[in-house]
Amino acid sequence: MAKAIVNPPKRTLMGPGPSDVYPEVLEALGRPTVGHLDPYFIDLMDETKELLKYAFRTKNQLTMPVSAPGSAGMETCLMNLIEPGDTCVVCVNGVFGGRMRDIVERIGGTAVVVEDDWGKPVDVQKVEDALKQHSDAKYVAFVHAETSTGARSDARELVALAHTYDCLAIVDAVTSLGGIELQVDEWEIDAIYSGSQKCLSCIPGISPVSFSERALEVVQKRSSKVKSWFLDVNLVTQYWGSGKSRSYHHTAPVNSIYALNQSLRILKAEGIENAWKRHHENHLKLKDGLEELGLEFAVEESHRLPQLNAVRPPDGIDEAAVRRQLLDEHNIEIGAGLGALAGKTWRIGLMGYASRQENIDKLLKALRQVLSTRQATAG
Amino acid sequence: MAKAIVNPPKRTLMGPGPSDVYPEVLEALGRPTVGHLDPYFIDLMDETKELLKYAFRTKNQLTMPVSAPGSAGMETCLMNLIEPGDTCVVCVNGVFGGRMRDIVERIGGTAVVVEDDWGKPVDVQKVEDALKQHSDAKYVAFVHAETSTGARSDARELVALAHTYDCLAIVDAVTSLGGIELQVDEWEIDAIYSGSQKCLSCIPGISPVSFSERALEVVQKRSSKVKSWFLDVNLVTQYWGSGKSRSYHHTAPVNSIYALNQSLRILKAEGIENAWKRHHENHLKLKDGLEELGLEFAVEESHRLPQLNAVRPPDGIDEAAVRRQLLDEHNIEIGAGLGALAGKTWRIGLMGYASRQENIDKLLKALRQVLSTRQATAG
Repeated sequence: MAKAIVNPPKRTLMGPGPSDVYPEVLEALGRPTVGHLDPYFIDLMDETKELLKYAFRTKNQLTMPVSAPGSAGMETCLMNLIEPGDTCVVCVNGVFGGRMRDIVERIGGTAVVVEDDWGKPVDVQKVEDALKQHSDAKYVAFVHAETSTGARSDARELVALAHTYDCLAIVDAVTSLGGIELQVDEWEIDAIYSGSQKCLSCIPGISPVSFSERALEVVQKRSSKVKSWFLDVNLVTQYWGSGKSRSYHHTAPVNSIYALNQSLRILKAEGIENAWKRHHENHLKLKDGLEELGLEFAVEESHRLPQLNAVRPPDGIDEAAVRRQLLDEHNIEIGAGLGALAGKTWRIGLMGYASRQENIDKLLKALRQVLSTRQATAG
Repeated sequence: MAKAIVNPPKRTLMGPGPSDVYPEVLEALGRPTVGHLDPYFIDLMDETKELLKYAFRTKNQLTMPVSAPGSAGMETCLMNLIEPGDTCVVCVNGVFGGRMRDIVERIGGTAVVVEDDWGKPVDVQKVEDALKQHSDAKYVAFVHAETSTGARSDARELVALAHTYDCLAIVDAVTSLGGIELQVDEWEIDAIYSGSQKCLSCIPGISPVSFSERALEVVQKRSSKVKSWFLDVNLVTQYWGSGKSRSYHHTAPVNSIYALNQSLRILKAEGIENAWKRHHENHLKLKDGLEELGLEFAVEESHRLPQLNAVRPPDGIDEAAVRRQLLDEHNIEIGAGLGALAGKTWRIGLMGYASRQENIDKLLKALRQVLSTRQATAG
């Protein structure tokens, strides 16, 4: 056991996630492991569910963390609700809408795709047109905050529209939870999933989900079994359900739940409305600084996510080299463009603990330095 | 942020897992999070894959950690290989064989079940009979070390038998990896999965898997898509594959990979044969002590797992109360019986870091004390 301990560099994480993790969360994470049925852990599970309800603004009984990353949360929502032959309107305006479509098709559903340009929000009128044309649709699935583009869609309006056409609404809130207004009960969202590593500033690997009573009823009345045993909420809730009689389903990632719990305690201590406000105000400060550097946003002002700022790299610059230099010389990570936006945007995250003055100052200073050297060399 | 840090009690984990986590692993776990595409992390991924190959005794290219618990590793193996209509012989001699059967059926496969009593190993002759009767079988799936019963099956022989009948062998090594001899290449196992929280003494939540070239070819030639996007190895390997060009699939659980890497470094520093030997020797010591206390093993000597000792609680004793007392008064966790063995066995784990003299002494002392008080009261 003479081996050295894994020793990663200390980065400032300002990409699309993972975001800077709260020091208290890392401390909680490293605390001694207890058994997944330990009375201490059962109590912590209960507390964690209550804190998740607080974050999601919901009273949904079925609110819990899935023991895997956000993509597994996406599959949890889609796989439990959609049966083979079901039709789902899937809104695609970036990578994650596309992923939803792929999953709907893998489980034997029919995806009616409503496409919008990357960087634009989901067009509500187009969704309504699709619902009129496809009266057999049972679900509308969309991404609230597209992590791949930095665009925000109008979740409240899309959910209301889905309900007008007797559809359940499935919402991707991976990047929105904790960063912008999100009201699961008030907006009547039916199934929602998020990620631990964005605006909650927890370590990556856990996906909080919540199902409305109406959605849960659909899951309980399925005529076919959920394709995944691991993600079948009818089974998982034997462990994560309410009451003191918890039975084994899988071994929970105990330490990651410590970390999630800690990040949610921090959110609650701040107050979620305050967190939304902080993300908004810091976005405005970053925006001013980026515009001073001559950088343009890739998303129109009305639809910008404060927690994920997509900007266009200056013409003629090697954008990957800039990111690499920020990482190597300043220990700052910002994100590249994904998919259709690869090479065309930088994604600058101000998520959770990363959304603070210190980070903004640090990034702007470093970016100014890197860009001026490179532009001088290029000129 | 005035909230206190999550503060679990310090337990001695001697149940069926999670096992005692190495202090170095907890230290690694709490180190600063880096991005999932950070060059530091890419290098750590490569090192982790090499260490996993060491642990599995394999050169399989596709050897990696699945970003979720062992059950997701089970689904990764079964879902990627088995297509709707495929026949799989599933050996059921405990909870986990039963879970395999459930998954095979969920994905549209036909499970030919070979049943053995709980606590017994898989009967090789019965498997051969099933293979003779079902010449369409493409797979044989079994559990090497049944965590629910403490019984070891003859993996080498079962794999050889599967190959005689032109089947691929899928092996559950959740509790065996690192605790008893396991030779993926020498025994020619086709697909295998394990868990982080057993004999590796890492935190729970990660499932190492490995696929042979032959198995990988089957996955690549599938006629239908894998039902789960998250577990589709054709996609996951874009991220966990070889070479320097890693593309995003999902956000890896960065800190959990630090922990896994650390636990594997410790295993390699000890030497895997030494780890097997240590588990065996400590089992013999525990066995002597338990027999002195008048406790009987629930599994025949020839098939006992050294890392998971299933014993029968003394007649007339409230077995749950004993476990609770061990936890409350001595901070020691031992496991209850599962399924058919609920109330009928205790499962005492000597896994990984928990397999040491100190733990044996501590448990025997505590158990002697608890049992003598209770038997005196009862008598």
